[in-house]
Amino acid sequence: MDFVVIGGDAAGMSAASRAKRNRPDMNVIVLEKTMDVSYSACGMPYNIADPARDLNDLVVRQAEVFREKQGITLLTAHHVEGIDRKGRNVRGTTDAGAYFEFSYDKLLIATGARAVKPDLPGVDRPGVMVLKNLEEGRRIKDYIRDRKVKKAVIIGMGYIALEMSEALVNRGIETTLVKSRPGLLPWMAQELSAEVKAELEANGVGMYPGNPVKRIEETSGSGLKVVCEGLDLFCDMVILAVGVTPNSEFSGEAGIDLGAGKAISVDKRLMTSDPHIYAAGDCADAIHVVTGKKAWIPLALRANRAGWAVADNVCGKNVELEGIAGTAVFKVFDLEVAKTGLNAGEAAAAGFEPVSAVVSTRSRAHGHPGNTTLHLCMVGDKKSGRLLGLQMVGKEGAAHRINAAAVALHAKMRVEKFAQSDLAYAPPFGPVWDPMLTAANQLQKDLE
Amino acid sequence: MDFVVIGGDAAGMSAASRAKRNRPDMNVIVLEKTMDVSYSACGMPYNIADPARDLNDLVVRQAEVFREKQGITLLTAHHVEGIDRKGRNVRGTTDAGAYFEFSYDKLLIATGARAVKPDLPGVDRPGVMVLKNLEEGRRIKDYIRDRKVKKAVIIGMGYIALEMSEALVNRGIETTLVKSRPGLLPWMAQELSAEVKAELEANGVGMYPGNPVKRIEETSGSGLKVVCEGLDLFCDMVILAVGVTPNSEFSGEAGIDLGAGKAISVDKRLMTSDPHIYAAGDCADAIHVVTGKKAWIPLALRANRAGWAVADNVCGKNVELEGIAGTAVFKVFDLEVAKTGLNAGEAAAAGFEPVSAVVSTRSRAHGHPGNTTLHLCMVGDKKSGRLLGLQMVGKEGAAHRINAAAVALHAKMRVEKFAQSDLAYAPPFGPVWDPMLTAANQLQKDLE
Repeated sequence: MDFVVIGGDAAGMSAASRAKRNRPDMNVIVLEKTMDVSYSACGMPYNIADPARDLNDLVVRQAEVFREKQGITLLTAHHVEGIDRKGRNVRGTTDAGAYFEFSYDKLLIATGARAVKPDLPGVDRPGVMVLKNLEEGRRIKDYIRDRKVKKAVIIGMGYIALEMSEALVNRGIETTLVKSRPGLLPWMAQELSAEVKAELEANGVGMYPGNPVKRIEETSGSGLKVVCEGLDLFCDMVILAVGVTPNSEFSGEAGIDLGAGKAISVDKRLMTSDPHIYAAGDCADAIHVVTGKKAWIPLALRANRAGWAVADNVCGKNVELEGIAGTAVFKVFDLEVAKTGLNAGEAAAAGFEPVSAVVSTRSRAHGHPGNTTLHLCMVGDKKSGRLLGLQMVGKEGAAHRINAAAVALHAKMRVEKFAQSDLAYAPPFGPVWDPMLTAANQLQKDLE
Repeated sequence: MDFVVIGGDAAGMSAASRAKRNRPDMNVIVLEKTMDVSYSACGMPYNIADPARDLNDLVVRQAEVFREKQGITLLTAHHVEGIDRKGRNVRGTTDAGAYFEFSYDKLLIATGARAVKPDLPGVDRPGVMVLKNLEEGRRIKDYIRDRKVKKAVIIGMGYIALEMSEALVNRGIETTLVKSRPGLLPWMAQELSAEVKAELEANGVGMYPGNPVKRIEETSGSGLKVVCEGLDLFCDMVILAVGVTPNSEFSGEAGIDLGAGKAISVDKRLMTSDPHIYAAGDCADAIHVVTGKKAWIPLALRANRAGWAVADNVCGKNVELEGIAGTAVFKVFDLEVAKTGLNAGEAAAAGFEPVSAVVSTRSRAHGHPGNTTLHLCMVGDKKSGRLLGLQMVGKEGAAHRINAAAVALHAKMRVEKFAQSDLAYAPPFGPVWDPMLTAANQLQKDLE
């Protein structure tokens, strides 16, 4: 059997490896458009922060290992340009300009997502860069070194923008965030996003939300000027971090159904509207376990898990994935920011009747040294009593705690039941009533 | 209505406060045998570790606040000695020798537990102490200061013993642990307890498991000698930490049913075998959510939660507690040790067919600086596929992660479903596949 995989990062290589492990006789072909496979894209901001580290440290497994040890036909610099679903083959061009064509019995589209380039004059100037794949990471890191970057502007204020602001500040670069729409992290409860704002301010990061960017100009020196409404920002480097979009164009052109966020629509088995074609990773959608509806939330764990599931399904097992809860965590300087499930706005849009409880608790027991404050916003449904989501911000205790709420969302737990959970307590790690229980107790009162 | 509470710590004061809040007209009387109420007993080792801190820092709310602000009749130095269930009154003696008697409409027994004093010659010598209540904590802290303790022996190797060994080492006291039975933390998977052993060794703590203690003698100087089989240990102070036992004697004598571990048997509403009498906290048992059977696992969260539930039930609400999962966490020097649910032995004893997966993973993403190793042992049931328990040991990421598994136990999740959880990922906080998912994936294979 010929199993062709388009895309050689998390989902693609997870699928290829597992398929070959499941069925060593299978002909597994991976077509990757860049020169890089199987790397930790999420690690790029932390790597860029440290000039002594090689960006290639982020490669989890070298292409040679896949080729020589695992027997996978792994072809880099292969740009797929089209799928002939009737003839069951994919075609494209290599970096060297050669045409290629591969036929498949089963196909996996794992083309990922790419950074959105806003439609602004000047986005193609040297020094204006995006960060999604490893090559883009190299370009930024090299640029910082070669141009001795002293000032940077990041357009966008999502978590990649925030992680990059930390990385750049850690390299001594004066960093300013700007975005067109108002509000820092508008998906977050205001009490919590205020903590993030304070942390960024404390670390000297400039913030200009609500200042639409009009163009990027070159200055008379060798610098750049980001021209915004009512504001000019001067810098040596601009990072565009306004969001990502799925690489689903040739899939759509081939007549494969697209769904949420123009991602490729897949069922629980990761099958697309064509039963010979699967999709996984950042290019594919998923079922949200809270709403039961399709959502596009491209994250690494889902990509890896979906890659495995595709391999199993291609090999004749029948594996269904339950879905995603939208669990995410990131670090902003000394703050941990975590979320799972829905915020109140998303919950209302999904037809729930959301009630939120916002609480602040100590991160350690009464009287224990080193206490900091943990801020939580828990959302429940007035009608059913169900837990719908949780957000947490604090210097400690947010990143790993969020998992308990994520599991509760998978179990479709009511707030009342979650509040009964026997959670861990010891003075160095939290108060007797875990902060999540304090939030749940409060929310339960509001739900009654 | 007269609501009498015996015992003024976590369960008792939680109940008294909430009852008075629920029904300000209620006559709430608390009878506490010591002079201390409402303190964080779990914080004692950390307080003792710091000579600059006052032990009274651990008092969460002063007696005066309960009396004056909350209108609770709080009587310290009142030893209850008996309950007349027919006449509905309790009787006892004060520290000053006065007899007292109070009648009740509803009674809460929240007498807690006490440290077991082993039946050994010499356990009553000066310098031989236990640690459970605040007065005992003061005695130890004062003794260390007054006698300038240089060497200590702790009899027992449970988590109180381990926390105290850290506290004493932090005060520059040479510390040795000894116990009669073999094995450090025998309830823990051997691969995990080996990590704890290595951490204690690295911090210079002596360990002698499997050396039955025969007696404690005074030496010709002012020191003590702990005489064990095949071993004499010389020191200035001995701490007995061989376990705790519920203070249930006068309850048993009054004909109230005792259950697991001689704790007072209660139903989901915390009611004892006498419908006018409730019990909560370390003196009462609970339903274990994994086995569905009664268990006695005295921990602080349950005490607080049960106190609230009693208050609500006494006030006419009908609150049922689901039960406990046996979730616990403690710190041993730089290690976090966490558990929830059953180990393989407990699972087999409860009628399950346990299968264990032991895995070691990185604590952070591939290539992220500061990586340490996290060790996990996950237990599932071969017959039902249910998740039964999890243990974790590592320098970071164990204490809060365990809560996700605890919630899964409350939800009676199968390992297969838990393995599908959408857990949080960011490079500073863990690998893409959360360590618990790696364990669940491994366990799932073994369960198939």
